[in-house]
Amino acid sequence: MAAEISGPIVDTDVHNALTDVTGYLPAAWRARWQETGYGVGGLYHNPRGVPRRDATPPDGGPPGSDPEYLIADHLDRFGIDYAILTGPGTLPLGADPDYAGAIASAYNDCTIERWLPVTDRFRGSVLVYSDDPPAAAAEIRRVGGHPHMVQVMMASTSRAPYGQRQYHPIYEAAAEMGLPVAIHPGTEGAGSAWPPTPAGYPSRYLEWHNILPVNYMSQINSLVCEGVFEKFPTLTFVAIEGGLAWLPHLMWRMDKNFKALRDTVPWLHRLPSEYIREHVRLTTQPIEEPDDPRQLLAILDMMDAEHTVMFSSDYPHWDNDNPSMLLTQARPELRERIFSATACELYGITGRPDPTVRRGNREPAGVAAGPADASTQLGQVE
Amino acid sequence: MAAEISGPIVDTDVHNALTDVTGYLPAAWRARWQETGYGVGGLYHNPRGVPRRDATPPDGGPPGSDPEYLIADHLDRFGIDYAILTGPGTLPLGADPDYAGAIASAYNDCTIERWLPVTDRFRGSVLVYSDDPPAAAAEIRRVGGHPHMVQVMMASTSRAPYGQRQYHPIYEAAAEMGLPVAIHPGTEGAGSAWPPTPAGYPSRYLEWHNILPVNYMSQINSLVCEGVFEKFPTLTFVAIEGGLAWLPHLMWRMDKNFKALRDTVPWLHRLPSEYIREHVRLTTQPIEEPDDPRQLLAILDMMDAEHTVMFSSDYPHWDNDNPSMLLTQARPELRERIFSATACELYGITGRPDPTVRRGNREPAGVAAGPADASTQLGQVE
Repeated sequence: MAAEISGPIVDTDVHNALTDVTGYLPAAWRARWQETGYGVGGLYHNPRGVPRRDATPPDGGPPGSDPEYLIADHLDRFGIDYAILTGPGTLPLGADPDYAGAIASAYNDCTIERWLPVTDRFRGSVLVYSDDPPAAAAEIRRVGGHPHMVQVMMASTSRAPYGQRQYHPIYEAAAEMGLPVAIHPGTEGAGSAWPPTPAGYPSRYLEWHNILPVNYMSQINSLVCEGVFEKFPTLTFVAIEGGLAWLPHLMWRMDKNFKALRDTVPWLHRLPSEYIREHVRLTTQPIEEPDDPRQLLAILDMMDAEHTVMFSSDYPHWDNDNPSMLLTQARPELRERIFSATACELYGITGRPDPTVRRGNREPAGVAAGPADASTQLGQVE
Repeated sequence: MAAEISGPIVDTDVHNALTDVTGYLPAAWRARWQETGYGVGGLYHNPRGVPRRDATPPDGGPPGSDPEYLIADHLDRFGIDYAILTGPGTLPLGADPDYAGAIASAYNDCTIERWLPVTDRFRGSVLVYSDDPPAAAAEIRRVGGHPHMVQVMMASTSRAPYGQRQYHPIYEAAAEMGLPVAIHPGTEGAGSAWPPTPAGYPSRYLEWHNILPVNYMSQINSLVCEGVFEKFPTLTFVAIEGGLAWLPHLMWRMDKNFKALRDTVPWLHRLPSEYIREHVRLTTQPIEEPDDPRQLLAILDMMDAEHTVMFSSDYPHWDNDNPSMLLTQARPELRERIFSATACELYGITGRPDPTVRRGNREPAGVAAGPADASTQLGQVE
């Protein structure tokens, strides 16, 4: 794959399993973590399991838990230069924002101390608990200045659409730190979230997974209509793992309605689709696979994929896309943009990784770990 | 328009305003109706108004309330042969299923006695309150045998996804009577419904209207995954006014996941997209309007629009599509299917209307009407 892409290849969704965060938690929360983990599980069971069993590292730990193995098993195998680490992906909506915020901070500290020093090929995400926007903003300012923490990441689920004002402190902090804000699925219908669909709760994982993109459409619609991209003109919103092929429909419908009702949103000065093209980025996995691949390519043209779409694998999760089989029929210019240029521009990547950064700073913390499945309770259902 | 279409032209979404149902209500409910109407309003205000003011009939009544004027102003003007009458469109989820059911029955009786006899060009919908499936099934059996009542219509909103078992009595009755089951939008977020998005409540009508299709995707996903079309192999589901261009994405995503997780839905024997192509029909209004109309035509090809899409105008609502401007660049065979053949097959229409059916049975009921806005409280927000 690497040979034909001239720029650095960036995988925008690589799940590193942070299994040893206990030592990063304040003492007040350690017992709870060790006893219950995060404590908010989802309703839906994937009989395949979520982590790929064939991605188990040599020490038998959870897939994604060994940085060296992750590099060999995924980055080296597919010629990927950079991995945007997405950790547990998402913090489900729970009850106690202080507990959730403490866990987010622990994850971030763990990423910074144990993962980013391993190699220049890793870039980190600032995990925040978005249901407590002031605390989330403080966390962004606390760790978002690290040169290799390159985005803010929050759950795709929220109690109100993300365009609404209560969430603006998050965007203000992200814009101040020059970071995009990403969402990741997996918490839909879990904890204190609304049902995953406007029609209530699906019965099974298959149906639930099929319909996750509707939440993404809802969030993007809200961000645009509420004027977030007018208020924060440098902000980029990254919709990780939410599908692609629905975007033309959403842009067309929003534009049509805007032409009739623009006086109700006087803060918008451009067509909704223009805000989306400039400020929203989607990631490829799980890519749609019509029988005729030209149909997907036609959709990509309709959504200006050269500027809106970035490659992601979702390694090491069950439905991750094999990078060598992804969009093989797309024209070279589009592949160059999707596998490299758009992500490099967004995340400030300017060249190949520096091979001298490889400190292997992985000494144990000396603090008892939580239950083996604690990290998997953190929304690793995608 | 008519000249180039060889079969009868069928408009599958024409809102007749049933302003005089009071006399059809049991005495127990009349006072409540006269005092409050249905009593469940929506959260979102359209500053354009919902009914088109230029469609006001000569007597000054609500648009759509005068059958003769509706015929002249819409059917004759555009050369439409048949109107599938959709009345108030939808009964929002309220609290009292007996009251809602009584109103549904009153509407149905009013349609049968006051509208269908006016002309052979009208076909009616059996309105049901879907949150009380046994009563809805009884209503379908009560009036669904009328030769010109051609479908069941229920709200697009539901407390649980429509594929789930509690709703199967509705489909059983519809299948028994040989009627398709339709949904119509407008009640999303109203009354006791869930929020209109998995992220909660949008702020304004524009944002709410943009995102209505996510509920449609959720319902179709549920109907397929729960095996409704295996259990009721003759059933057709009509998704009125929910948009079109999202269907390829939904079919592709469902098919991809099905290939990985089909053992969790062993009652499905075919790809999800095959059930959709055979059992789901979408209506055109509000049609998506990309700058390049070829993009919409490409999408229609991806979704087998020759078999899945039917023409609708949404007359006399604010955003109704002008039939003479609709899909003008589509190839003739596709226009023939969309404007005529698919609807004729679904609704059992076999030729031009019989001009001798024109009884004009419109004598007043002699019962005091409800408040002037009562009918507009019935979900006429689309």
